[in-house]
Amino acid sequence: MAASFFGPQKNTNVRVGLPAVCFVWQIAMVVLFGVFIRYDEESDTHWVEFRRENNITSDIENDFYFRYPSFQDVHVMIFVGFGFLMTFLKRYSYGGVGFNFLIAAFGLQWALLMQGWFHSLNPETGKITIGVESLINADFCCAGSLIAFGALLGKVSPVQTLVVALFGVTLFAVEEYIILDLLHCRDAGGSMVIHCFGGYYGLAISWVLYRPNLHLSKRFHGAVYHSDLFAMIGTLYLWMYWPSFNSAITDHGDGQHRTAINTYLALASSVLTTVAISSMSKKGGKLDMVHIQNATLAGGVAMGTAAEFMIQPYGALIVGFCVGIISTFGYLFVTPFLEKYLKLQDTCGVHNLHAVPGMLGGFIGAITAAAATEAVYGAEGLRNTFDFEGEFENRTPGTQGGFQAAGTCVSIAFGLVGGVCVGFILRFPIWADPGDDNCFDDEVYWELPEDEEIVPPVLEYNNHMIHKHQEISESNFSVDQS
Amino acid sequence: MAASFFGPQKNTNVRVGLPAVCFVWQIAMVVLFGVFIRYDEESDTHWVEFRRENNITSDIENDFYFRYPSFQDVHVMIFVGFGFLMTFLKRYSYGGVGFNFLIAAFGLQWALLMQGWFHSLNPETGKITIGVESLINADFCCAGSLIAFGALLGKVSPVQTLVVALFGVTLFAVEEYIILDLLHCRDAGGSMVIHCFGGYYGLAISWVLYRPNLHLSKRFHGAVYHSDLFAMIGTLYLWMYWPSFNSAITDHGDGQHRTAINTYLALASSVLTTVAISSMSKKGGKLDMVHIQNATLAGGVAMGTAAEFMIQPYGALIVGFCVGIISTFGYLFVTPFLEKYLKLQDTCGVHNLHAVPGMLGGFIGAITAAAATEAVYGAEGLRNTFDFEGEFENRTPGTQGGFQAAGTCVSIAFGLVGGVCVGFILRFPIWADPGDDNCFDDEVYWELPEDEEIVPPVLEYNNHMIHKHQEISESNFSVDQS
Amino acid sequence: MAASFFGPQKNTNVRVGLPAVCFVWQIAMVVLFGVFIRYDEESDTHWVEFRRENNITSDIENDFYFRYPSFQDVHVMIFVGFGFLMTFLKRYSYGGVGFNFLIAAFGLQWALLMQGWFHSLNPETGKITIGVESLINADFCCAGSLIAFGALLGKVSPVQTLVVALFGVTLFAVEEYIILDLLHCRDAGGSMVIHCFGGYYGLAISWVLYRPNLHLSKRFHGAVYHSDLFAMIGTLYLWMYWPSFNSAITDHGDGQHRTAINTYLALASSVLTTVAISSMSKKGGKLDMVHIQNATLAGGVAMGTAAEFMIQPYGALIVGFCVGIISTFGYLFVTPFLEKYLKLQDTCGVHNLHAVPGMLGGFIGAITAAAATEAVYGAEGLRNTFDFEGEFENRTPGTQGGFQAAGTCVSIAFGLVGGVCVGFILRFPIWADPGDDNCFDDEVYWELPEDEEIVPPVLEYNNHMIHKHQEISESNFSVDQS
Repeated sequence: MAASFFGPQKNTNVRVGLPAVCFVWQIAMVVLFGVFIRYDEESDTHWVEFRRENNITSDIENDFYFRYPSFQDVHVMIFVGFGFLMTFLKRYSYGGVGFNFLIAAFGLQWALLMQGWFHSLNPETGKITIGVESLINADFCCAGSLIAFGALLGKVSPVQTLVVALFGVTLFAVEEYIILDLLHCRDAGGSMVIHCFGGYYGLAISWVLYRPNLHLSKRFHGAVYHSDLFAMIGTLYLWMYWPSFNSAITDHGDGQHRTAINTYLALASSVLTTVAISSMSKKGGKLDMVHIQNATLAGGVAMGTAAEFMIQPYGALIVGFCVGIISTFGYLFVTPFLEKYLKLQDTCGVHNLHAVPGMLGGFIGAITAAAATEAVYGAEGLRNTFDFEGEFENRTPGTQGGFQAAGTCVSIAFGLVGGVCVGFILRFPIWADPGDDNCFDDEVYWELPEDEEIVPPVLEYNNHMIHKHQEISESNFSVDQS
Repeated sequence: MAASFFGPQKNTNVRVGLPAVCFVWQIAMVVLFGVFIRYDEESDTHWVEFRRENNITSDIENDFYFRYPSFQDVHVMIFVGFGFLMTFLKRYSYGGVGFNFLIAAFGLQWALLMQGWFHSLNPETGKITIGVESLINADFCCAGSLIAFGALLGKVSPVQTLVVALFGVTLFAVEEYIILDLLHCRDAGGSMVIHCFGGYYGLAISWVLYRPNLHLSKRFHGAVYHSDLFAMIGTLYLWMYWPSFNSAITDHGDGQHRTAINTYLALASSVLTTVAISSMSKKGGKLDMVHIQNATLAGGVAMGTAAEFMIQPYGALIVGFCVGIISTFGYLFVTPFLEKYLKLQDTCGVHNLHAVPGMLGGFIGAITAAAATEAVYGAEGLRNTFDFEGEFENRTPGTQGGFQAAGTCVSIAFGLVGGVCVGFILRFPIWADPGDDNCFDDEVYWELPEDEEIVPPVLEYNNHMIHKHQEISESNFSVDQS
Repeated sequence: MAASFFGPQKNTNVRVGLPAVCFVWQIAMVVLFGVFIRYDEESDTHWVEFRRENNITSDIENDFYFRYPSFQDVHVMIFVGFGFLMTFLKRYSYGGVGFNFLIAAFGLQWALLMQGWFHSLNPETGKITIGVESLINADFCCAGSLIAFGALLGKVSPVQTLVVALFGVTLFAVEEYIILDLLHCRDAGGSMVIHCFGGYYGLAISWVLYRPNLHLSKRFHGAVYHSDLFAMIGTLYLWMYWPSFNSAITDHGDGQHRTAINTYLALASSVLTTVAISSMSKKGGKLDMVHIQNATLAGGVAMGTAAEFMIQPYGALIVGFCVGIISTFGYLFVTPFLEKYLKLQDTCGVHNLHAVPGMLGGFIGAITAAAATEAVYGAEGLRNTFDFEGEFENRTPGTQGGFQAAGTCVSIAFGLVGGVCVGFILRFPIWADPGDDNCFDDEVYWELPEDEEIVPPVLEYNNHMIHKHQEISESNFSVDQS
């Protein structure tokens, strides 16, 4: 078919490539974990001795109890939140949720190693020790690549998604090290390191992989009624658990508490402005599911940095108010513009949900940090919140604000440059990506059931008739089934 | 069309009204939060000083760690539980989950203010301080309006739902203040203040908004196979997390622990009696999804007040046993009766799931309270459980029982009277509500995808054929797509 | 119909049997709970005195705060995880999620009694006292029967599923007592007592209930596109919360912490090898949803015993690596083999997901235990981890390993022998099970909506046309609806 008009049909066979990559990379993980990774003192059986030595009075002070509920919420966001948000396409729901599952499962292992080498390698023993906070960070690190996958959804092969994750996690660990350790920024919920980086990383890859004939897959590009409902599962889990996402690794006590409150408020505010703009933009004021599914979440993204600061509840509402508007405008005007004039195809609109709100979140964080005063935070509170300790003891909030802004720029740069490089790697003709007329179609990489709308109706109609009218003779039926 | 038989078709255009309400109300929230709302001492950076002053030994004693996991469960119940439970209609799933999302997002902000003014306004500073318990209470407060929305599902415009939430939250805060503060009732899980109030509030509104020609929308009134499965997601999340709902704001320690156990047991018991009655009522003993989706939850509603008392595990089972039966009977006989003879259209049957079980829960709470003895609770336990402190130091369990019963009556009265008033407000012809022949139809307020069953089959069938038989020439296909 | 070819159609009327069983059993539960079950000291109002007597400094040390978040995750796994995983069949989704709900709701009550009698009956008072750990154990106990239900899915009546649960819970409590108390095995996540037992129990029942003419229901045996997506909800919740499942009842502190980490890693590793084998097995490297939905979970099953030991992170990865392969091979080759040569019909493939990985998990636990040394665990850590206290004070790790292996054999024996016995009970012709041509069909036990694919398309198409072309006269429409 495709041969007659478009030249030889693309080879989308991944029967060698996908198993090979999965096996080789997983074996590499086993070996590297064997060499490097051990339990930390809170998850090791020596905890009982550690407790005694450090005068910890109760097991409940194990970091596990501070962070595990948030960890599980983050875990749900990564696998159900991101996964189901990407089921909105009528015939790419398996790919959305399934490849998300695959790359997150690989990415979190690689993230434990990469983040471990940069942040918690013990120089004496040569080991990385992990605990519940490492698991949360590994999930965070995957999120960057999953965001990038959102821009590429339906246009890449599963092998390519794994490559995106491999380099995405690697780049993430480096930029995170620069931003958090060298620049000493605070970014608990990852506006900069996760969303801004992940968004621009995905956009840059997508730009390099531009498909001029993507309209040939137009028949698959869109939702059906129930696929939009599946996507709402993803949206709601992201929305509900975002307070846990932003607060998962903030300071014990007031840090986690305040971050959760701020995020909760910013998200609520986003919903109302998203609905307002969505309704204004359509004939009859009808709402668009794409906006509801995505722009309502922008408040969480934009609060990723500032949520742990004393931005005040009304500050959180203002942030949500503005980014809800900006994000919805993005879906209405910017995504079509990018596709038409910048040759940038962004399936899930990560530009509007992650890249821009993430960047804004970075700058909001910078401003909030620069505006911090001892009067509001208290001397001790200021020191704790911004970690003005050790070599950073004398840093002022103003300086901190400058560094926060610089950090945002670093994350954009890493996303764009890294994405372009990875994009070129993905253009090698070895990855079994789909042809322009086969995008957004699960048929390419999945065994599909004979579906209700296609073949079964005839049979099911018959069965139904048989159920209803028992007088129809069985012989007819048997012929049908044979 | 409608013009020829029913007069001019109703104007359902919300393009001005919906954005206007969203913007104005959200701006009002920002201003009011700016004036009134601040962090409490456990979410403020001064926590470290507060800890020292109050001899709190560890960050883990921040209220956040007592309540945050339960808060997140409650949050899931509000957005996924209520939201997906209302997706059961074949063509109103977007409206069910989407408007639920909208009104909860607005309602929780307004609730923080209303509940703050009544319960935690500091007279010296003029500020309301909020923490995780405030967030839980705000979610609870929304629940009342979401329950009312259940009775109205499919028959109101999004602007009307916001009005329902605005007045619902306001009324809630007042009745809650009367019941909990003035009458000094205990109602941790809100049998009275949430379910009984919310149920009667919705029923009264629906009664005022009676639509004599609702049968014109009959074609949309019912489920399809997969919409019932989406609704089961809502059911199960409500069912599973109800122990968290009831225990979220009970006393630290044994209070939360006991409440969770009682609720868990009552819910389990409801399931069996619901199945029994549902099966008995139909030919061949077939089960009805409406009963399974709703009546199984009645045990949680009915335990909302008594769950924190020493009702004993078998007491919880008995409560669940009885309300499972009553609720299923309600769906079988009372809802049709109400519609036929009382002109009361109750889309989700909130009468059977919230109003009646909530009212019963209030009285069960009253009886359990009246039966409390020092022998069972211990002197200290009795005092803690019923807060017999301060001006209520000398109240006896018997008196407490009387006040609990009075509280239930207050909640019914508030629901009915408030609902009738709000109903009349909603009858003004300015709200762009759907016509009688357009109810239960997402087409009115949502941009819908061209759906699989309607237009696509022809195309998809073609695509399928092309996939299967590659010999079909591309030219044909191009014509199809053009 | 069926009469003409297959003799008289089977009686599937459960209108007497199902309500009778539900009522009688639920009343029995009420009575038995009344006689036996009370709150334990951490959920009783006397907790405040208990705290003082035991010098517990804070309410946060109530076991509730150690275990409740994990309990809720386990609860989600039981009801949404297992429930939705079984919605994959195109026309048995109601039965999958609904009967799962029913038997778990009964099973957990019966489990509280059975486990209470064996583990926590106070000989002085004759009472069983329950707390949050009892609720977790009750959920675990149900899991065994739900696994068995997976093998029988679509082939049994709801009454039979309740019988499976009644005996399943009973057998579970006995084998658990033997394995955990008499043999003093450790099995926190239940590789042996839950998965291995439940898997073989279901397989044995299914073997006895072999249906030679099951091919007559072939038209219902398979998925449709959206039913597979519903099943993915189940898969992901099981996958995400499995760390909570395995760690829910392990030791406070490092025990829960380490178990969660190990399970998280094993599961991640399973995903990659499952994808690899699934892709290798199909033409074009296409992935099979059955494998992704099931075999990705094998890592959690196989880590059920060893996760709390010092298996090290790379050990967890190796376990996940191997069982992902084994489980996928099972779906590809063993299930068809069992059906063809052993006359064993296993609807969900519990052989590959529970029986074999559970058995392997038991032996992995035995080996890990036998390899434990004081050098790795520390003297105190070794004692705590394996509970080498009281009469087991002098047990060595080597001996412990032997007992762990013996425990695995006990669970297999209980599953197989118990399952055969229960299977024969279920063959009595009184249970209203479906005929061979009616399996996997919700029509038999559920009131079904007139579905989108069957009747509505004509109507909906009309409605759609009316919406689009308002010139079509209303009179036409009214005729359609009448």
